[in-house]
Amino acid sequence: MKSIFKSNTKNEKNLGFGKFASEGNRMRLINRDGSFNVERKGLNFLSSLSIYHFLLDMSWTKFFSFAALGYIFMNIFFASIYVLLGNNAILGHGSLNFWEQFSDAFFFSVQTSSTIGFGHLTPGNFLSDLVVSVESFVGILGVAIITGLLFARFSKPNAKIIFSENAIIAPYKEGKAFMFRIVNARKNQLFELDGEVNLILQKTINGKTERTFHKLDLEISHLTFFPLSWTIVHPIDSNSPLDDFSETDFINSDPEFYIFLKGVDDTFNQYVYTRSSYKMSEIVYGAKFESIIDMHKTGEKMSVDISKINSFEKITFP
Amino acid sequence: MKSIFKSNTKNEKNLGFGKFASEGNRMRLINRDGSFNVERKGLNFLSSLSIYHFLLDMSWTKFFSFAALGYIFMNIFFASIYVLLGNNAILGHGSLNFWEQFSDAFFFSVQTSSTIGFGHLTPGNFLSDLVVSVESFVGILGVAIITGLLFARFSKPNAKIIFSENAIIAPYKEGKAFMFRIVNARKNQLFELDGEVNLILQKTINGKTERTFHKLDLEISHLTFFPLSWTIVHPIDSNSPLDDFSETDFINSDPEFYIFLKGVDDTFNQYVYTRSSYKMSEIVYGAKFESIIDMHKTGEKMSVDISKINSFEKITFP
Amino acid sequence: MKSIFKSNTKNEKNLGFGKFASEGNRMRLINRDGSFNVERKGLNFLSSLSIYHFLLDMSWTKFFSFAALGYIFMNIFFASIYVLLGNNAILGHGSLNFWEQFSDAFFFSVQTSSTIGFGHLTPGNFLSDLVVSVESFVGILGVAIITGLLFARFSKPNAKIIFSENAIIAPYKEGKAFMFRIVNARKNQLFELDGEVNLILQKTINGKTERTFHKLDLEISHLTFFPLSWTIVHPIDSNSPLDDFSETDFINSDPEFYIFLKGVDDTFNQYVYTRSSYKMSEIVYGAKFESIIDMHKTGEKMSVDISKINSFEKITFP
Amino acid sequence: MKSIFKSNTKNEKNLGFGKFASEGNRMRLINRDGSFNVERKGLNFLSSLSIYHFLLDMSWTKFFSFAALGYIFMNIFFASIYVLLGNNAILGHGSLNFWEQFSDAFFFSVQTSSTIGFGHLTPGNFLSDLVVSVESFVGILGVAIITGLLFARFSKPNAKIIFSENAIIAPYKEGKAFMFRIVNARKNQLFELDGEVNLILQKTINGKTERTFHKLDLEISHLTFFPLSWTIVHPIDSNSPLDDFSETDFINSDPEFYIFLKGVDDTFNQYVYTRSSYKMSEIVYGAKFESIIDMHKTGEKMSVDISKINSFEKITFP
Repeated sequence: MKSIFKSNTKNEKNLGFGKFASEGNRMRLINRDGSFNVERKGLNFLSSLSIYHFLLDMSWTKFFSFAALGYIFMNIFFASIYVLLGNNAILGHGSLNFWEQFSDAFFFSVQTSSTIGFGHLTPGNFLSDLVVSVESFVGILGVAIITGLLFARFSKPNAKIIFSENAIIAPYKEGKAFMFRIVNARKNQLFELDGEVNLILQKTINGKTERTFHKLDLEISHLTFFPLSWTIVHPIDSNSPLDDFSETDFINSDPEFYIFLKGVDDTFNQYVYTRSSYKMSEIVYGAKFESIIDMHKTGEKMSVDISKINSFEKITFP
Repeated sequence: MKSIFKSNTKNEKNLGFGKFASEGNRMRLINRDGSFNVERKGLNFLSSLSIYHFLLDMSWTKFFSFAALGYIFMNIFFASIYVLLGNNAILGHGSLNFWEQFSDAFFFSVQTSSTIGFGHLTPGNFLSDLVVSVESFVGILGVAIITGLLFARFSKPNAKIIFSENAIIAPYKEGKAFMFRIVNARKNQLFELDGEVNLILQKTINGKTERTFHKLDLEISHLTFFPLSWTIVHPIDSNSPLDDFSETDFINSDPEFYIFLKGVDDTFNQYVYTRSSYKMSEIVYGAKFESIIDMHKTGEKMSVDISKINSFEKITFP
Repeated sequence: MKSIFKSNTKNEKNLGFGKFASEGNRMRLINRDGSFNVERKGLNFLSSLSIYHFLLDMSWTKFFSFAALGYIFMNIFFASIYVLLGNNAILGHGSLNFWEQFSDAFFFSVQTSSTIGFGHLTPGNFLSDLVVSVESFVGILGVAIITGLLFARFSKPNAKIIFSENAIIAPYKEGKAFMFRIVNARKNQLFELDGEVNLILQKTINGKTERTFHKLDLEISHLTFFPLSWTIVHPIDSNSPLDDFSETDFINSDPEFYIFLKGVDDTFNQYVYTRSSYKMSEIVYGAKFESIIDMHKTGEKMSVDISKINSFEKITFP
Repeated sequence: MKSIFKSNTKNEKNLGFGKFASEGNRMRLINRDGSFNVERKGLNFLSSLSIYHFLLDMSWTKFFSFAALGYIFMNIFFASIYVLLGNNAILGHGSLNFWEQFSDAFFFSVQTSSTIGFGHLTPGNFLSDLVVSVESFVGILGVAIITGLLFARFSKPNAKIIFSENAIIAPYKEGKAFMFRIVNARKNQLFELDGEVNLILQKTINGKTERTFHKLDLEISHLTFFPLSWTIVHPIDSNSPLDDFSETDFINSDPEFYIFLKGVDDTFNQYVYTRSSYKMSEIVYGAKFESIIDMHKTGEKMSVDISKINSFEKITFP
């Protein structure tokens, strides 16, 4: 058997993890969802706080809750000012106790910031007129900000590629191959897909553990269209750093596969990028994917059953 | 005659239709409008439901109808709440019967959600004031969403390339060529156009039908400018998988041509993509396109008559 | 002297003007502002009417006039309906004659569509309440459309490259060169500029005029930065189709130079494209550009005087 | 020692500084923040005034101040008109003196332009009704413009790469290398980073100073991911224009390094560009960067301490 580990210094450094990753530790570098497993500290809070990215990346539920909370607090803030300006600040209902006064001020503020202005409550003196002027401006800016954010969230191009839960080591031609499967979870169509798979292996020599990086050859690395599913295949042949690996070799070398996909989104005509990773615990040694395409359908359309994306049958290598 | 079918395994797989398409069936893979002829099932309803893509891709008529329906239902919803809050919830008209009460509540809701707030109808108690606060927020969000969607629909770059109804097999130099013609239906200008034509052929050997995929050589595959029309030409020479095909060969092999175009849109300075396809029923064997450019015009401008995009005269090959 | 005309069939066709342009006529193909000198007819009016491109490409003055006209007509339309609904449709001022009634209806419509809703004019019956509901929806959509269009106009990336009024034939090394000069008229910075110059020549043989197309070699065709000006130079050497041209040869061959520039805009990080052209009447045979860069400035900044973009001195070739 | 200066005419011109920069002066060409050190004059004020770029590139504080000032001035403008239209133009409060009249007019204008329209102040005659119609239109346009600008500012993709304060000349393999370090200051992830470093050297021969331009070879010029920091290294070997430079050679040649980075932003899936520069005063001859990655962390995440981006220890070359 030839040397199991073929270090490729160039690829390793180009991946961007540098010396850290090549040190002997078994930390995951890229999470399943494609984010980096990195903690960043020492950055001034304000300069790292990219509110915009924060508001763009949160879930829709959180986003609307944030917006609602902001609306409530803004109205409480202005209501407090109207209350502080005294009983004559708002003309309309004869307010009796503090809570009635405050709730009137709050509803007056709502009618002002949202620009409804029914007019049964009106500003009563110069100062409250002034506050109304400020609040109307804040209201306009607020609507502008919400609108801008909503659209930015809408127009953020994002692919939703579903990866098979497991990658498998499957029979392939006369040998074996590393395979996983992806499918497009969105109605929009993707094309000009490019895939790249990188591998990190652990290697222990004289008690010292090192990591080696490898860019893997793929059977196919580019698709013009992506209408169905794509089984991405790295043939384990003599050019592969995994050549002649037994199941034990796999487990000992703790392989991590990093996947990097890009393609053009039909709706926005823009490139979208997706990353993911497989660690050994997510890889099945000895398996075959079951087809997710209905071959015997007699209808007019090709048919793909996305729920079967992870269906495989276990097999034993001879 | 040399072998009609030249399989090109590499291209075939790279097209993205995989094993399915190479099986023996005569299903269309890409529709005339460029969408894939694929049915997708097994995907959780919610996760496949990309409301945004849905709202972006529907027609303008549908979009405005959706918006109007949403506006009506929102106001019916809030009107119902005001009615439930009793007769004092809204001050103003003395409402007599249920329908008068409901229509008053509906119009009050309209005046609130649209932030008009005439003030002849006003919230009458704490609870209706509260509902008004909620409705004002919903109204603001609604306007923000409509605005965001409208802009997203506006800014979606889309080319509108008109393809000739028919592709033709025409005389070309000493032989024949597969040709079709495109023209830009929009006022915006396209440039840096790239065209790609792929071909799928059926082949029956010993009663088993197989498909073969081929990327076709084009006489010209790139245009710097696209001011007029473009006749895309695949010369049927010795490098072509269609070399020496008779009309019967064409019909038997049930060819499908997949066209993939990209170019830069003048208005948004962005790449736009268009796809289409021709099946045998849309191909005329033996024809010549008539010029759509007015050659004898003496004016100051070149002139192209787009209505003649599909004009051809039938001819017979010797 | 070797043959003046070197036809380059490949480039010619790739330019996109096809057979038309190669016919013998002296029509300009690309206007100075980069638009194509093409008339398009035969297209169904509605399908060619790309309102959006129309609204995006018009001047700001026109755009705001269109918006104002739209606003006025919408309010006249709804005012007419209120008038038709009779005197009770709007409560408030006691309207006496028709014009007073109409102007009240108009101002009521303004207060409704803009969602001001002062409340001194209010809808007076069920039908006018209904019309108010429709108008509030139309008003919201209108604001959304105006906002969307404004932003689309804002975000349309556009370079404003100033071309020198004249191109010149200037001395260059031991021979001559075709030169023109460009400068960035915007404060935003451009980088990664690529330039391409194409040439069309007329050639008369046996009384038949033909056009030949040529892609010209440039001394420099790519700039990393574009802080100052760029003199784009095509050396007229033995590789040039203009080799050994006398001034008379230039005039007889009626050359047209088509310029195509692209670069990355600093503000939007997006590619922007610019085109222009020079006909013989805009080319000065025998001239040298004067420097627009202040070489003897002693300050801390480089200095470029954009008003001198077209400054040249006439010279005579030996 | 071989010749210190290796002029590379091609790169020099392609950088875009042309003859100016190659003249003997020691002006900085690119500022630390990546902007060009260029003054542009002779451009018609209006045509250079790209209000949009101006409003996009200013700080948020300035932007909101501008918006607030615009809001105030617009309302003062319309208030003045209402005052000019006389005491009956606005019905509501009995206004006594001029300032009361003006402040009423101002607040009425606010309630109109913001579309609040409480209704305790209402237009009193035909002319003020007309002005209200105009102001409502201006108000709508104003909101649309603010919304459009806010979103454009939001969606402007911008990387915030922190460069180490100093570049260093550090030991590297058997020789030396020019190094600097960058880190991503934003939460968004960057990938597919490309780096380019250009160098300008001063050279004095016979009392005449010239500049030479050089594109430097980098140890690594492309990173797939950018999770941590990146130390960009130009090895000073026999291919480097800095080969065999002593500290004195460095000082005498007054080197300027221009850095050009591009990468794909995770949030917008768009290319972002960053530039910077190092002059000799910012370069430390003889130093080693200290690691900013916590190697001995035992947790589950890699850890990078961004505050140490400029940490280095001085060393002496043998």
